[in-house]
Amino acid sequence: MNTPAQSDRVLIFDTTLRDGEQSPGATLNVDEKLAIARQLARLGVDVIEAGFPFASPGDFEAVQKIADQVGTPDGPTICGLARATKHDIEAAGKAIQPAAKGRIHTFIATSDIHLEYKLRKTRQEVLEIAPEMVAYAKTFTNDVEFSPEDAGRSDPEFLYEMLERAIAAGATTVNIPDTVGYLTPSEFGTLIKGIKDNVPNINQAIISVHGHNDLGLAVANFLEAVKNGARQLECTINGIGERAGNAALEELVMAMHVRRSFYNPYLGRPVESEEPLTNIDTRQLYKTSRLVSNLTGMLVQPNKAIVGANAFAHESGIHQDGVLKHKLTYEIMDAQSIGLTDNQIVLGKHSGRNAFRTRLKELGHEMADQELNRAFLRFKDLADKKKDVTDWDLEAIVNDEAQQVPDLFRLEHLQVSCGDHARPTATVTLRTPDGEELTDAAIGTGPVDAVYKAINRVVDIPNQLIEFSVQSVTVGIDAIGEVTIRLKHEDLLFAGHGANTDIIVASAQAYMNALNRLYASLQNGRSLHPQHDEVASAVK
Amino acid sequence: MNTPAQSDRVLIFDTTLRDGEQSPGATLNVDEKLAIARQLARLGVDVIEAGFPFASPGDFEAVQKIADQVGTPDGPTICGLARATKHDIEAAGKAIQPAAKGRIHTFIATSDIHLEYKLRKTRQEVLEIAPEMVAYAKTFTNDVEFSPEDAGRSDPEFLYEMLERAIAAGATTVNIPDTVGYLTPSEFGTLIKGIKDNVPNINQAIISVHGHNDLGLAVANFLEAVKNGARQLECTINGIGERAGNAALEELVMAMHVRRSFYNPYLGRPVESEEPLTNIDTRQLYKTSRLVSNLTGMLVQPNKAIVGANAFAHESGIHQDGVLKHKLTYEIMDAQSIGLTDNQIVLGKHSGRNAFRTRLKELGHEMADQELNRAFLRFKDLADKKKDVTDWDLEAIVNDEAQQVPDLFRLEHLQVSCGDHARPTATVTLRTPDGEELTDAAIGTGPVDAVYKAINRVVDIPNQLIEFSVQSVTVGIDAIGEVTIRLKHEDLLFAGHGANTDIIVASAQAYMNALNRLYASLQNGRSLHPQHDEVASAVK
Repeated sequence: MNTPAQSDRVLIFDTTLRDGEQSPGATLNVDEKLAIARQLARLGVDVIEAGFPFASPGDFEAVQKIADQVGTPDGPTICGLARATKHDIEAAGKAIQPAAKGRIHTFIATSDIHLEYKLRKTRQEVLEIAPEMVAYAKTFTNDVEFSPEDAGRSDPEFLYEMLERAIAAGATTVNIPDTVGYLTPSEFGTLIKGIKDNVPNINQAIISVHGHNDLGLAVANFLEAVKNGARQLECTINGIGERAGNAALEELVMAMHVRRSFYNPYLGRPVESEEPLTNIDTRQLYKTSRLVSNLTGMLVQPNKAIVGANAFAHESGIHQDGVLKHKLTYEIMDAQSIGLTDNQIVLGKHSGRNAFRTRLKELGHEMADQELNRAFLRFKDLADKKKDVTDWDLEAIVNDEAQQVPDLFRLEHLQVSCGDHARPTATVTLRTPDGEELTDAAIGTGPVDAVYKAINRVVDIPNQLIEFSVQSVTVGIDAIGEVTIRLKHEDLLFAGHGANTDIIVASAQAYMNALNRLYASLQNGRSLHPQHDEVASAVK
Repeated sequence: MNTPAQSDRVLIFDTTLRDGEQSPGATLNVDEKLAIARQLARLGVDVIEAGFPFASPGDFEAVQKIADQVGTPDGPTICGLARATKHDIEAAGKAIQPAAKGRIHTFIATSDIHLEYKLRKTRQEVLEIAPEMVAYAKTFTNDVEFSPEDAGRSDPEFLYEMLERAIAAGATTVNIPDTVGYLTPSEFGTLIKGIKDNVPNINQAIISVHGHNDLGLAVANFLEAVKNGARQLECTINGIGERAGNAALEELVMAMHVRRSFYNPYLGRPVESEEPLTNIDTRQLYKTSRLVSNLTGMLVQPNKAIVGANAFAHESGIHQDGVLKHKLTYEIMDAQSIGLTDNQIVLGKHSGRNAFRTRLKELGHEMADQELNRAFLRFKDLADKKKDVTDWDLEAIVNDEAQQVPDLFRLEHLQVSCGDHARPTATVTLRTPDGEELTDAAIGTGPVDAVYKAINRVVDIPNQLIEFSVQSVTVGIDAIGEVTIRLKHEDLLFAGHGANTDIIVASAQAYMNALNRLYASLQNGRSLHPQHDEVASAVK
């Protein structure tokens, strides 16, 4: 039997829903988290870190639902994060309980600077807490991951001792975080090698790595860690996460895919082995990237590696003569390998429900009948306005439907006039949660401002607009515009998303979206992330 | 005397205006290139690669103007790119002639795949062409850089011989490109070490590196190259460039700045040396990033390292208790170090011209009186609509003014009505280049579509809108929106940019902007990049 550490495959641990969601303003609701988790399962990640159950009832509910609906026997392991305290671990243990394979990920800091200024504990104290809490986590599941926070700045000898104790207490994965994104690749490699060489029972656990991209080195650090024995990578789609984000899943996976002959020997394989180094279905990468970008509102820059709009620009921009050898003069990978097909135009106004459903299925979206009906109505509406409805348009519609924001206030009517010498004026009619129809008008500095002021007059919940962005989904003057906004209300952020060929209507939808979330959260009397400032920033 | 290769400082060679401008759709006009070049000089780059003079008259003019206006005795070296042909080198030599310090950068491929499929030449042939063309370049300037294209995939022994000959012929810099973004850091390090160990006359030249970010490794590759002897880094602001772009200047500079104790020994310095490793004024990084993003229309994602909106989110989001030690638990650099100040709110509607001029000067913008007047009028107009005018608003105004697009067609009047149950309708009045006033109206799928269709009815130049994006510049419901669009006309791309609190007006301005560029290019009977497809894609 192989011990875990001898694994010849690299495990992908996706933390888009935990560390990724900690990006300022990227807050997701439960349904959005479920939609992303389902896509991560299709992508083939080994572990989904679904959230931090103790942080809030919303987080708990999300982890539990994902464990229940995505954590099937042949699905990914579902993981919940917990500080090294009984309360945290208990919440995580309960939340992952419905999953066929559940994991608790518990952590405590080991660097002197964190011990002194954050935990106010001695080395000896944390050395006792960690194995005790790992053992407690084992009472909920056999699969326990332990992280010494800020490992990159910890005294190596102390770190070795800590890891040995955590493994002895039952940790099956030990995760080495570069919490502040400070290490260079050779330093990270040396750190992992030191752990392999100096922790006596290291062969009883998988070595995992976690890192941040503050200096632009996260991906390179992880690949160097793999060369030195790491077999699990904690990463996020599009590299989102705290500050400059985490290591990008798609870059790690494609680097190991394109350069597998280079990495094979480090995994004990023959150089020429064609067997994939990870379990990821690379053709799902592009779609997953779009979904996460749409739902979190975190845009992907055009020059982003692998999934940026220009990453494969050679592919579309230059005449293809079909000679593979010639292509290789400037290309090291195919656009097809990440699921970016050129064959975009598929449907038009005469396409029926069957063609619509079939294409969605091909794109990986299975919808319940009711959802499908709503989506089909929007498709017909769009096809009336737009000659060619592309895969990207379809994805925009589906992603929008997937959001399922509570429809508390509903926009019934919107009317705007503006111009360069006019006072932008908007009239809106909203239906309130009580069924009342209210109409009001406002002027603004622009049409969107006027719409938002008119809506605010009706809804009357104080809030501040802190971000507004529009992206066109497809090429052409009749493209769908996707509007993403963020509102702030008493230190809480709420995102909203709208997609329409009319950017004013899309802007209004996005605003109603965010306001409804804000209103729902006030109604429930709970904040989405009550402890995020305190807790989340404590996490690697 | 130090030979160049013993330099204990890393030279920054910025190719934003050459490789960066080759990003699909990032085309810049001469005035925009000048504005960026001036800012690069303030940033402190050692070399500006200003363009590819032989590629088009527009490229030639841009390089020549930058050489003349930015290539002052205490300014940066101005470099022009040239294939290893007499025509190319002659054009580059003439274009850089006005610069106090001018450089010619000439290149020829050395990998077998490029020799066979692109150049259709033998190794022996290119081995003779390269030194001959370096020698020819030396007749124009003493500062000649030579690049063996696709060095990363070239036979090392052949590469060594090629470099030895180029240096013998007078090359003072030899640049090693990873043209397809294929190498890993350790491979890049080994490549540079091999060159240092095996090219007999390597001490007579600076070793430079050029790379692409296809696998997300460009920055790590360069830093490994520095450890192995590279002393010039070819990079771009925001990492823009072909496909997934180049190595990002700001990430390279800040990694070497934050981790200087790690890199010092590789440059022959004591570990604790505080002397900067590059000549870059890091406090200009943020502003330079914004300028390049605005003028090229290449957005920066929020989780981009160093210059992304979230990169320093801890800085603003969490209460600052002022204890530096405490900050260090989660921060490895200060927002101030890249010039991102929190002190944003400076001007309001009662601020006068002097306050306006002073603040612009503090922000690094010196304007001629006429420009200043125009900008001040826009500021007053904005201050009427918006309570607090921040530094970012000012930058948006200044960047917009800096564009100086030919005002051929002018938008005189714009009037729009739309809504969720209405047919979006726009009426526009344009003044044509002949002074005629024409008005027309159109309906569209949304208000922007309606405006663009109405403008198209008047202007009547076939074009396709391929990209449309809006970003809000500042926080708040009354924020300025910046619209960036790209039009396509017969395989040529034209970007347009508009900034206004009314996104419909900004959209109209951006469209007029792009259309005027398109019209100007048709009038001049020249394309902006006639040979780009053929020539530019031949470049590392």
